[in-house]
Amino acid sequence: MIAVTVITHGHFGEELLRTAQDIVGKQEQIQAFGVTSETGVEHVCQFVEQALATNESPDGMLFLVDMMGGTPCNSALLKTKDKAAEIVTGVNLYMMISAFTHRTRLSLKDLALKVAEDGKRAITLPKDLLAKKAAS
Amino acid sequence: MIAVTVITHGHFGEELLRTAQDIVGKQEQIQAFGVTSETGVEHVCQFVEQALATNESPDGMLFLVDMMGGTPCNSALLKTKDKAAEIVTGVNLYMMISAFTHRTRLSLKDLALKVAEDGKRAITLPKDLLAKKAAS
Repeated sequence: MIAVTVITHGHFGEELLRTAQDIVGKQEQIQAFGVTSETGVEHVCQFVEQALATNESPDGMLFLVDMMGGTPCNSALLKTKDKAAEIVTGVNLYMMISAFTHRTRLSLKDLALKVAEDGKRAITLPKDLLAKKAAS
Repeated sequence: MIAVTVITHGHFGEELLRTAQDIVGKQEQIQAFGVTSETGVEHVCQFVEQALATNESPDGMLFLVDMMGGTPCNSALLKTKDKAAEIVTGVNLYMMISAFTHRTRLSLKDLALKVAEDGKRAITLPKDLLAKKAAS
């Protein structure tokens, strides 16, 4: 099973993980880390190193982070070179549910691609979708 | 200024709002509501009605919700018929920052489209992007 690690600014990543588990059930091999203004970059890098070191899964680790260019993303990039780890930015609830749904059946790279695709597909204007449906 | 209201399962929407403000600065005309297993649909609908009733902005309200088909989305859809309100699903951090960045200069509909576009653009595989850059 591919491990899932969430790193975001503030604490919404931890809450996102809690919410996703309320929906799909309690998950194993998950970790979350919140980066605040008091957290040094070295602490985030240290967390990534420890997450990788303690991961017992041979299938690798998927990092879900908030934004390209932010400390969570940059730390993950820096510390996962040549590791069995993929990173997807722009985490939302559906991406996380998708990760938990497909992580036992897809390869690490395919999971990253699937999660990114599902995350984008979850972004909609529901009023427009319903109007289109009503018009067709 | 277009008001921004966040409704999600659990409490990550409230944390997302906190994190976004840590990045772009304290915001006015914002509200957040977390839906737990104890929250009845009628309470979510009531929150949406109150949010609309107390909104002093003539520019309307943008609802950012977590998922199409969930209680937050369905309640917003039900209670914003014929109101100056747009809904975008799949909320992530970049969508929220985009909403705060552009809500004083765009119309409500254009803001919803911009926020959705930015939210999708924020979903990337940074390792792939860097590899492509290095190869070009």
